[in-house]
Amino acid sequence: MSRPPVFDEGFSRQFEELLRWRRDVRRFKRDPVPDALIETLLAQTSLSPSVGHAQPWRWIPVAEPAQRAAVQESFSRCNADALASYEGERAALYARLKLEGLREAPVQFAVFCDHGTARGHGLGRRTMPEMLDYSVVAAITQFWLSARIHGLGVGWVSILDPAEIAKVLGTLPAWKLVAYLCVGWPEEDCDEPELVRAGWERG
Amino acid sequence: MSRPPVFDEGFSRQFEELLRWRRDVRRFKRDPVPDALIETLLAQTSLSPSVGHAQPWRWIPVAEPAQRAAVQESFSRCNADALASYEGERAALYARLKLEGLREAPVQFAVFCDHGTARGHGLGRRTMPEMLDYSVVAAITQFWLSARIHGLGVGWVSILDPAEIAKVLGTLPAWKLVAYLCVGWPEEDCDEPELVRAGWERG
Repeated sequence: MSRPPVFDEGFSRQFEELLRWRRDVRRFKRDPVPDALIETLLAQTSLSPSVGHAQPWRWIPVAEPAQRAAVQESFSRCNADALASYEGERAALYARLKLEGLREAPVQFAVFCDHGTARGHGLGRRTMPEMLDYSVVAAITQFWLSARIHGLGVGWVSILDPAEIAKVLGTLPAWKLVAYLCVGWPEEDCDEPELVRAGWERG
Repeated sequence: MSRPPVFDEGFSRQFEELLRWRRDVRRFKRDPVPDALIETLLAQTSLSPSVGHAQPWRWIPVAEPAQRAAVQESFSRCNADALASYEGERAALYARLKLEGLREAPVQFAVFCDHGTARGHGLGRRTMPEMLDYSVVAAITQFWLSARIHGLGVGWVSILDPAEIAKVLGTLPAWKLVAYLCVGWPEEDCDEPELVRAGWERG
């Protein structure tokens, strides 16, 4: 064990800037992202907290054109259903929102929680079994911040049918989809959420 | 909108140190934590990502002795059940683990997800309703890192009966318990998870 680090006022201020400028990004440039950077970010996920130290996250890259097309189709279907659930002005506003960057983002991951893992021996999950999924969310949150440090944007797409995504990727039945992530260089940086700028809450 | 920040190599290295030295803390000093620091950390949670910008997190301080005693009782009961589910060497190892700092931690929060919130208008939750809970987990993850920057430890206790905690605190039926957090100054700093040191995975 090395010496505990001390984080000074300057680091603390910069960390708050990081939180302030992390965004859910839906507008990406198509420029490639170096593999080594993605590998560094993924390696860091081993430092995320997890219940019983189970480390249940499974990051599956989605790169094949056929797989990406199937994800886009799932989004289109689910988004049409979502649009149909709104009425009037809200439906019009919803229809104008850009909610994903599935066509542009150069790097994409489906992130699963492995409910079949033996790691952790069930510790901490008896009364709150959802802790295993929460561990994956914590890892994604840390990945999101790490990516932003390097100028990379992350967009979390939830308007998808998890069963369709699992089928497209041929994942094990015990794996639960927690997130579908688009990763790439954002078209712009911003310190205000896109939904706030679009007036979703006001509307 | 101000100018986007640039995070240099030094910040990136320090951020990795932060990830490396964040721990699930179960051994706290009893020294008080300044209210202003806790308020700063809670204020920062507004910068966390949330589905549809719903910001569904509800942080309920648990400070009254009767409430804390009830939480400790819930833990004792649930932990006895958990212990009974293991056998032999694993049961002996489990019995030796310290899994919470409920008696010592000066600051404690029950963190709920408000399933009754109108904010976000359901955006992004139709196919994956669990996104609302995940938003609370993201906020907790960021709080955890922010706390560690200031030397504060956080311990996430999940060996509790969520229904009992909700009853003790008298929360609304639409609020779901996501986490019970112990917060305070750690007895020691460490870059290795306590469960790893205790040999839980090896055992």
